[in-house]
Amino acid sequence: MKTASQHDLEFLFEPGSIALVGITTAEAGHWTRTFLDGLLEFEFDRPLYLVNPKGGEIQGHKVYTSLKDVPGNIDYVIGLVNARIAPQLVEECAQKGVRAVHFCTSGFSETGDEQRMKLESELAEVGRKKGVRIIGPNCMGIYCPESRVSFSPAFPKESGPVGVISQSGGNSIYMVRQAALRGVRFSKVISYGNACDIDENDLLECLAHDADTRILALYIEGIKDGRRFRRILEEITRTKTVVLLKGGTTEGGARAVAGHTAALAGSRATWDSLCKQLGIIQVSNIEEMVDVLVTLSFLPVPGGRNAMLFGIGGGASVLIADEFERRGLRVPGLPKEIMAQIQEFTPIAGNILRNPVDYSQAMMNPDGIRRTLDIVSAWEGTDFVVVFIRTGQFVHHGVVPARVASWAAMLFAKQGDLPKPVAMVLEPSVVPQEAEAIWAGISGCVAAGLPVYFSFAAAANAVNLLLTHAENRSTIG
Amino acid sequence: MKTASQHDLEFLFEPGSIALVGITTAEAGHWTRTFLDGLLEFEFDRPLYLVNPKGGEIQGHKVYTSLKDVPGNIDYVIGLVNARIAPQLVEECAQKGVRAVHFCTSGFSETGDEQRMKLESELAEVGRKKGVRIIGPNCMGIYCPESRVSFSPAFPKESGPVGVISQSGGNSIYMVRQAALRGVRFSKVISYGNACDIDENDLLECLAHDADTRILALYIEGIKDGRRFRRILEEITRTKTVVLLKGGTTEGGARAVAGHTAALAGSRATWDSLCKQLGIIQVSNIEEMVDVLVTLSFLPVPGGRNAMLFGIGGGASVLIADEFERRGLRVPGLPKEIMAQIQEFTPIAGNILRNPVDYSQAMMNPDGIRRTLDIVSAWEGTDFVVVFIRTGQFVHHGVVPARVASWAAMLFAKQGDLPKPVAMVLEPSVVPQEAEAIWAGISGCVAAGLPVYFSFAAAANAVNLLLTHAENRSTIG
Repeated sequence: MKTASQHDLEFLFEPGSIALVGITTAEAGHWTRTFLDGLLEFEFDRPLYLVNPKGGEIQGHKVYTSLKDVPGNIDYVIGLVNARIAPQLVEECAQKGVRAVHFCTSGFSETGDEQRMKLESELAEVGRKKGVRIIGPNCMGIYCPESRVSFSPAFPKESGPVGVISQSGGNSIYMVRQAALRGVRFSKVISYGNACDIDENDLLECLAHDADTRILALYIEGIKDGRRFRRILEEITRTKTVVLLKGGTTEGGARAVAGHTAALAGSRATWDSLCKQLGIIQVSNIEEMVDVLVTLSFLPVPGGRNAMLFGIGGGASVLIADEFERRGLRVPGLPKEIMAQIQEFTPIAGNILRNPVDYSQAMMNPDGIRRTLDIVSAWEGTDFVVVFIRTGQFVHHGVVPARVASWAAMLFAKQGDLPKPVAMVLEPSVVPQEAEAIWAGISGCVAAGLPVYFSFAAAANAVNLLLTHAENRSTIG
Repeated sequence: MKTASQHDLEFLFEPGSIALVGITTAEAGHWTRTFLDGLLEFEFDRPLYLVNPKGGEIQGHKVYTSLKDVPGNIDYVIGLVNARIAPQLVEECAQKGVRAVHFCTSGFSETGDEQRMKLESELAEVGRKKGVRIIGPNCMGIYCPESRVSFSPAFPKESGPVGVISQSGGNSIYMVRQAALRGVRFSKVISYGNACDIDENDLLECLAHDADTRILALYIEGIKDGRRFRRILEEITRTKTVVLLKGGTTEGGARAVAGHTAALAGSRATWDSLCKQLGIIQVSNIEEMVDVLVTLSFLPVPGGRNAMLFGIGGGASVLIADEFERRGLRVPGLPKEIMAQIQEFTPIAGNILRNPVDYSQAMMNPDGIRRTLDIVSAWEGTDFVVVFIRTGQFVHHGVVPARVASWAAMLFAKQGDLPKPVAMVLEPSVVPQEAEAIWAGISGCVAAGLPVYFSFAAAANAVNLLLTHAENRSTIG
């Protein structure tokens, strides 16, 4: 029943006009307002209509009492109405010439309730008959900064190379926001929910041909057509990097999937082997997904697995070396002659001039830090440099001083200042006063185009995934 | 050369008087001031002397120009002098009747420099000859809140059941602070560094007999007498829970150990098997150590492995179920009759009433939340309850509202309010404005005596370690 080419779904990402149907007029903080907040914040510059039977106005925008009362054409509808009247809304959309409806509305097959499962089939059926495409139900829809469409006012307005296809709305919000804070930017993000019409395969095919998308992040709970899924991914992975988070890889997780988007989760082994064969980077939670997106966006692929670790704290040095070597990276010892070069201008007491280099006592000497980094990164045994600051170790000022937290940012104007790729480990704090100082450091590093990680383990894991992916590609290629 | 009984080391933890020798008079933020700041903040109520050849005063406290000029007796010295004059300070201590010196000073065997290794041997030799015990060098010394001794002004003043023996100063600071933020309290913490005299075995033996210490956290880089170490641990593990973080389990980590405390790291397999045989909980980084200390301090041991997961977000539900089942915990489906009970007062659209229970749409209804928690935790299939909030999902207010972040705290006056043990997952944010709101939630949960975890993975891992430990103990017992 699908149309021959799915490329025509591109219209979803640049609607000429939008109507928000079912938006609440009463309560500013209501969830249905999110979409208006997003479009206003992004300064959506085509016709935007609000519809609610009660009429009235919201922030100076007229609220129409029905879709047919809207004077102009409508391309795209965001449906926020109760589940029971969703099929009726699709009928009205057809009459109005609407091409697609996104239903944020939940209360369909994900409830496991028989009547509500029927309602979802009915919804899909009406859409098919009337030629109206449906995104959802039970999802957040589309974020496409280039065309000023966003389901969150908090997302970045600039575009970037990462496309996201996520079955879950909440997970897509979390993923985009966490990655955005660390500098990642997006081309197109789609949260597609129960997929009663447009599904993961349609969206994948669409993004496969999207020149703006170089990296593809997938959060998938279940797929409806495994063969097509594999065929499309085979094509995509030839030119783009794909990262997959499969939700529901355990029995309990699969049960949660059924209750969330009513999908069939599939066996873990099948997914593992798919990823291995196609060179897809597989991650097991959103934190790891974000770490990988940060890495793909900001860490040039190192020439090998030799890490040069540089930072503050002797005990921290031991643990970061362990985290890196445990994941198949190497922390080679510095040759005596290199150590001697550093010792010429760095006191030996309180500083450890091996690898890791612990620059504790000299940490307020940016000149020495920079000279040391130049020396160790120029060494042929170094493939990449990791600068780490265990911020929670600085206690004699009560809180982490801002100057220490932004120390690394001051050293690098941009990625590329050293002859080898640089990554940063900056541990956050839950204490508000400290969080503020550390945020300054994180922002500085992000502005310098550096990948920032929040723990030693996360950094080591992400760099290993990048290198493993690059090694696999060169083997396949 | 050791004395027969090491219990006499108890005097280290309650010195009758302290002298800080080598404290800087010039710069308030200097590292040597940390110790004074700590003792003043803790209102150390016995004689406290400052010594520096330059004399003068610091914050109204007279600075003596030499140790022998101090009028009263001195029990314990904190040595902040240059490494080269450390042996001479021990001589002076002997003349003054000082029983122990802690050297924070670094620049000894950890540098790998032959002359400085000799200097450390000399230091140990002088101490032995003159009967002055030495902690360190290259460490932070002692934190014992009961006797008002602390090497950081930021540590908690109340005592608790956790004793820490840490070879690294920085790691001990980080561990204590992170655990303290989540409510963990300590009996005695010792950072012992290069261990030229008092070593891990002496300290272990001392804490073995310490009634105030129920839980023992060890950060060890290398040991000098493996047999004695094992013998003491065999005894300790009969009555106390021991958690071990071994630094330097990889080649690169072991090299870092040599440069940090000059210890021999030992093979990973040996350490793994020791932990397995003695029922020691082994962790691989400080974050995991802190998670375990939080768990041992605040989570009553559940009767089994069945988790009831309750929170906000459908996609989050899938992922938390995966994290728990992946680690050998179970997330059993709720029986229909239990689901029906909840449905009586909870709308089915936007809420998933299975396990995990996703209470997204009803999250502002504390009465419904509490009734639901009562029902699911009373169910015989539930061994423990995990309440989770993926705070970063709330975007329609721009930042996480404080009322959501502290939601869980409002529901529980204390651990024990539900018939089953309760754990909380509250994800932090690096954005200062959000960090503040989430901190309110974390503090509320900590005040209620609940264990708080910062990720789904961390919670699942820690609960599994607790249960595995309990299962092993019951098998051994």
